[in-house]
Amino acid sequence: MKHRRLYRRITKFTDVWDAQRLLVEHLNPIKDYEVVPVFQAFGRVVYEPVVSPADLPPHNASHMDGYAVNSSLLQNASPSNPVKLRTVGVCYAGKKPEFKVGAGETARILTGAYLPEGCDAVVPQESVTLEGEYVVFTSPATPYQYVDMKGFDVSAGQTLFERGRVLKMADVALAAALGFEKLKVVRRPRVGIVAVGDELTDDFSEAKRGKVLNTHSHVVARLVETAGGEPLFLGIVPDNRAAFLQLLENQIQRLDILLSIAGSSVSEKDVSSILASENKLYVHGLTLQPGRVGGFTFYGDKPFIFLPGLIMSTLNVFMFLAYPVLRKMLHQEPRYYHHRVKAVLAEDITFRKYHDFVKVVWVRVVEDDEGLRCYPVLGESSGMSIPSRSDGFIIAPPGTSALKAGEKLWVNYPPTL
Amino acid sequence: MKHRRLYRRITKFTDVWDAQRLLVEHLNPIKDYEVVPVFQAFGRVVYEPVVSPADLPPHNASHMDGYAVNSSLLQNASPSNPVKLRTVGVCYAGKKPEFKVGAGETARILTGAYLPEGCDAVVPQESVTLEGEYVVFTSPATPYQYVDMKGFDVSAGQTLFERGRVLKMADVALAAALGFEKLKVVRRPRVGIVAVGDELTDDFSEAKRGKVLNTHSHVVARLVETAGGEPLFLGIVPDNRAAFLQLLENQIQRLDILLSIAGSSVSEKDVSSILASENKLYVHGLTLQPGRVGGFTFYGDKPFIFLPGLIMSTLNVFMFLAYPVLRKMLHQEPRYYHHRVKAVLAEDITFRKYHDFVKVVWVRVVEDDEGLRCYPVLGESSGMSIPSRSDGFIIAPPGTSALKAGEKLWVNYPPTL
Repeated sequence: MKHRRLYRRITKFTDVWDAQRLLVEHLNPIKDYEVVPVFQAFGRVVYEPVVSPADLPPHNASHMDGYAVNSSLLQNASPSNPVKLRTVGVCYAGKKPEFKVGAGETARILTGAYLPEGCDAVVPQESVTLEGEYVVFTSPATPYQYVDMKGFDVSAGQTLFERGRVLKMADVALAAALGFEKLKVVRRPRVGIVAVGDELTDDFSEAKRGKVLNTHSHVVARLVETAGGEPLFLGIVPDNRAAFLQLLENQIQRLDILLSIAGSSVSEKDVSSILASENKLYVHGLTLQPGRVGGFTFYGDKPFIFLPGLIMSTLNVFMFLAYPVLRKMLHQEPRYYHHRVKAVLAEDITFRKYHDFVKVVWVRVVEDDEGLRCYPVLGESSGMSIPSRSDGFIIAPPGTSALKAGEKLWVNYPPTL
Repeated sequence: MKHRRLYRRITKFTDVWDAQRLLVEHLNPIKDYEVVPVFQAFGRVVYEPVVSPADLPPHNASHMDGYAVNSSLLQNASPSNPVKLRTVGVCYAGKKPEFKVGAGETARILTGAYLPEGCDAVVPQESVTLEGEYVVFTSPATPYQYVDMKGFDVSAGQTLFERGRVLKMADVALAAALGFEKLKVVRRPRVGIVAVGDELTDDFSEAKRGKVLNTHSHVVARLVETAGGEPLFLGIVPDNRAAFLQLLENQIQRLDILLSIAGSSVSEKDVSSILASENKLYVHGLTLQPGRVGGFTFYGDKPFIFLPGLIMSTLNVFMFLAYPVLRKMLHQEPRYYHHRVKAVLAEDITFRKYHDFVKVVWVRVVEDDEGLRCYPVLGESSGMSIPSRSDGFIIAPPGTSALKAGEKLWVNYPPTL
């Protein structure tokens, strides 16, 4: 009796860390940049180190509303020995004082205004009384009291932002305050997203009649975007080799990365993995659970990563393969999480299968008095409510058969989902 | 000798928590809603509980590529006792199978496809061999193996999202999969932002000639936006009561909140606080450092919060007063942080002044093997590099004179800066 094997099978699951390394090694950071108006640069990635051209503040400035003084004049001031100084002008923020303050003199000064020549300290207005044009001081002042020193905030020549930094609005505000009208940022990697499957539709009425709504493309696009990429929806292709190949040939030139969703398994309909396997360099099968049937290949120098279709596998392969690629392209350390926190596992988890795999468990994170606790959000890997109910994921390395309640683990966060 | 006091002073610093309570108590959550296409609802706030109309999956579905079987037929299957079943059809995802599987029969089934009538389990294709139209099984199957059970993910009638939830893309994908084409979300609170001061400009060339660039409005607008509000730039008003009053009268009707930046101190030029103090209910002066000269009042039922002009005070008063207001308006628990993590303080901090105040120290958070450590980012409250170099802030309650390295503290995060 001779049995025929009709189906392809994954004979070797590539170590997911090896796969990540192989993929990341084969590609280069984006070399193109854009010059954008500074207040539109937030969320973008710094292309080359930004060095401050100036001190901030550029001059000694007042920290309070009050009076600018030469502190040596007030050395012996006390209630029984009040010192009276004559007001010779007012210093406003945003205007360099055009007068000097001499012996027997003071100047009205407002918060943020530069100290006038002849002064080294500020006395808050609450501490003085007024007599006509004279100000009465009844206590000594120390040099530089209530003065924001020139350059305390930023010194000229200081590196403000390294290459690869994601600019916060607070960063671009700082750059603007230092005179940068524009900033040089890395061009966003263009990430094509295609969903594969005869069963898929973008049309709600077709979905009501039994087809499957193409939801995952939106989730993946959101991850791409918050990771710093530019998602490009390439729509849906049927389970058809020729159709997929045509899309690929039409699109790959304008893309930096191609991501497919579904069609990555071992059936006769899985065109993503079938197409990839026709290339010399390809990985199909990862020691990642959920996510076993993910993989990648290259078209020229363009990575094509095929994400499995069950949502938890989609997300895991995105985080372990696509996310490090995006980071490397954006001049950042390639890694599989956006940020992470330690949290105490609230419940035991037992792993009965996939002993030699990296097991990924999505968790909900809650506060307690000691810090953070995390609860596994269990379910099948097709569970669309899992990412909705989760905040991040923990991982159990190969060989782990259980995680115990009370263990303190890293919870890895994706970029905003 | 009679001394004249020219200046207003803050005679009483209102407890910042009392101020927060007073402010929040006086206002109501937004009553208006918008109905938006589901995939545009991410980032928006749920208006009323969203209840699932259906089970997900709606039928038992295959978790693998393989064969749908009635498990009772394979009870005694083994290599020495192979069971052969005839393939009577193929089940694809997105199509309800229109055939039944009877005695002696099986069906080809792909991942995500609904199980045909007569079957209760799936055997992965890797475990079988084929003989023409027959499939050979050499091991038993347990009922429901590799089956994603109807409703395991979501049950009909289950509440998916409570009012006040900020929708993630994973949430809207789930809602879409359940048939929601649109979602009802809370109208964004309209937040007017005005910067106050003769010294301010939005023009880089004027800034180069000594004026101060209006950077803070952008930072505040970003916080408003990531907190869920709609920021409206109202520009710059000079230090002039009439000008501010006119802006206020022109704008307040269309706003839910008015935020002013600067002009909140006690000098003759501080029109924000001068105007506010003309109302019956107002707070000027908070037990918050930096942030002492912040405060608020109401125009009709519209809160007008005046943020001080030094950036760290701007941010702190935003987080302690404006952020809880936005949260309450968005049907969320009012609080002064977006989220928080515990971190070990890396360096001693000594507080020499403002003993009775809530002291806010912004910190940089870094990973170590044990979890997270935080480093104080010190500097004057005018330091624009501080929020750039910080991730979040810790607070020291009134009476604290020092925080010691090694203490484990909550680090509070603002919404994305």
